[in-house]
Amino acid sequence: MSEVFPIEPRLLLGPGPSPVHPRILEALGRPTVGHLDGQFLAVMDDVNERLRRVFGTENALTFPVSGTGSAAQEAAMANVLEPGDTAIIGINGVFGGRLREMARRMGAEVVAVEAEWGRILDPEALVDAHRAHPDARVLAVVHAETSTGVRQPLGEIGQYLAGTDTLFLVDTVTSLGGIPVALDEHGVDVAYSGTQKCLGVPPGLAPISFSERAAERVRTRETPCQSWYLDAGLLAEYVGEGASRKYHHTAPINMMYALHEGLVIAEEEGLPERYERHERVGGILREALLERGFCLFAQEGHRLPQLTAAVLPEGWDEGALRRRLLQEHAIEVGGGLGPAAGTLWRIGLMGHGATEESVERLLAAVDAVRA
Amino acid sequence: MSEVFPIEPRLLLGPGPSPVHPRILEALGRPTVGHLDGQFLAVMDDVNERLRRVFGTENALTFPVSGTGSAAQEAAMANVLEPGDTAIIGINGVFGGRLREMARRMGAEVVAVEAEWGRILDPEALVDAHRAHPDARVLAVVHAETSTGVRQPLGEIGQYLAGTDTLFLVDTVTSLGGIPVALDEHGVDVAYSGTQKCLGVPPGLAPISFSERAAERVRTRETPCQSWYLDAGLLAEYVGEGASRKYHHTAPINMMYALHEGLVIAEEEGLPERYERHERVGGILREALLERGFCLFAQEGHRLPQLTAAVLPEGWDEGALRRRLLQEHAIEVGGGLGPAAGTLWRIGLMGHGATEESVERLLAAVDAVRA
Repeated sequence: MSEVFPIEPRLLLGPGPSPVHPRILEALGRPTVGHLDGQFLAVMDDVNERLRRVFGTENALTFPVSGTGSAAQEAAMANVLEPGDTAIIGINGVFGGRLREMARRMGAEVVAVEAEWGRILDPEALVDAHRAHPDARVLAVVHAETSTGVRQPLGEIGQYLAGTDTLFLVDTVTSLGGIPVALDEHGVDVAYSGTQKCLGVPPGLAPISFSERAAERVRTRETPCQSWYLDAGLLAEYVGEGASRKYHHTAPINMMYALHEGLVIAEEEGLPERYERHERVGGILREALLERGFCLFAQEGHRLPQLTAAVLPEGWDEGALRRRLLQEHAIEVGGGLGPAAGTLWRIGLMGHGATEESVERLLAAVDAVRA
Repeated sequence: MSEVFPIEPRLLLGPGPSPVHPRILEALGRPTVGHLDGQFLAVMDDVNERLRRVFGTENALTFPVSGTGSAAQEAAMANVLEPGDTAIIGINGVFGGRLREMARRMGAEVVAVEAEWGRILDPEALVDAHRAHPDARVLAVVHAETSTGVRQPLGEIGQYLAGTDTLFLVDTVTSLGGIPVALDEHGVDVAYSGTQKCLGVPPGLAPISFSERAAERVRTRETPCQSWYLDAGLLAEYVGEGASRKYHHTAPINMMYALHEGLVIAEEEGLPERYERHERVGGILREALLERGFCLFAQEGHRLPQLTAAVLPEGWDEGALRRRLLQEHAIEVGGGLGPAAGTLWRIGLMGHGATEESVERLLAAVDAVRA
């Protein structure tokens, strides 16, 4: 292939994929074996055990969905919702909006709780919505809004929902492995993520976790999950350590090796140390951007260290400068989505990319294209 | 990872995954870049062009679904079916049964046309079912039944359906790249496959193709596709060469490199030569199995060269011998599914595994474990 399409490496500082550690690329190329081979099942079991630790949970039903983050998002919703169910959905960016769209397609009644892009969802507003719809099947929010850089507080909502029959569903696509995720502590019932953000693994798998009460919901639903491929009830017969290992589909074997290696690297560093590194490097970037006249899009006090949405100074041509960063400096940053398109950059310092060196290279490149 | 879980290579002669060429494993480890990076889009465009050639089609809407074969199976059905639609489904093995299960979950009315496992679906019976249900939205069959080794003839059904408003949907998971697939010639409207069978690429992507009339159906449906993740209407805005490249989800970048390399290797060999190789090697295996007292499960004249379902001679312990092949000879073959469990082996000679050397190694191992 290299003769046809040489791939020039990039420094991936956008909203994902993030830079991939050489050990992970090497793991990808390990020998492909069968999806029922004991060698593979051992790797998958260990992946699931490591995912529990990074998710902060003891949930038995924790595994990687065979797709990317959006597949796990759909799996999370499709497994707990039935047609006619009410879903309370917090929307303050693209990914909350996508939760709404998925819920609608599943035939659920959506109660939207909105906040301005860049601001957190008011926990009180979510609680009020639940008081008005106490029979809601699920209340869903995004922990780390990749479109805005907002970090949603979870504790208050989780504590409130724990006393209700409503499941707490949380999108941790951009948080997992970068900032603390504590499903059990925060009373989260369903959470999902992707490999290509703070875990620093190529895209292609998507961790998901169901609490016991969410798993019970999966087992007792009246209609089958609309998706056969994503049906957690069927998947549980294959993925669990005590499972019958019944064939469901052919898991992405080599991607599982890569995810395993990514999780090993994360634990070698130590999860607290990893979170501290993201926090520190994100702070350095924010300061440097403010010095250069950027404005930070996300609400103060609720900014993600791993994803900074930064509004460009007056007169800077967002698209042209972003293309020059890529073409002249081999650095990828993301543009804005939706209403934020054309005004801001989304700069990711995720996983192996969350280093001071990344910040220095980016700032030097920004200064160069503006010189 | 190697310290924790050394992976011993296997000779993969089961129903998939199949052996992966070293160049493909190497391609997997190429630098991860962004899903909107021109470098990646060029690879994806070339993958789609090569997929058209191996699918035997000029269908514009041809691309790899970001999941495994079952994801593309669900995508095929979910995009053309709406609740209340009638689906005529041919069932003579596991994968036809799965089509029925998926259609039911989508709210379709299923008209099942069944044949005994191991026998082809009678084209006349399918045509008769259509005459009884002329308003059927789709008629679906499996080209290469991985559970039985049966090769379904397509021409007669395709020719008949071309004069109707019913879409012809064909599962080519185990046929693509191993035996000729000719969507346009056979009037197939929707076809899907997987990477880990005769393309010889690890699992994780799943090629799909929609004819113009199927794509029109996707555009004009009354209800949105139940799956946001698999919605071909949304995906078409990202994957097509003339597309706006609108962000939908993060494609499995490194898996795309691998699929590209697999398709390059297939075309280097030449598709006719590749089909001839599968045909020849499959024939050698069949003869050798008959000599050893095996019975061939699939109907004579309709046997897949790349997947042979072979009933073990009286008195052979299927499970025990299969485990010894794996443990003592590092050779994987598959067991039977459903009613065929415990009685037969499914032996795959797919992609890079379809060689005389594979057959020799397998036969020597079989003779050894029976000695």
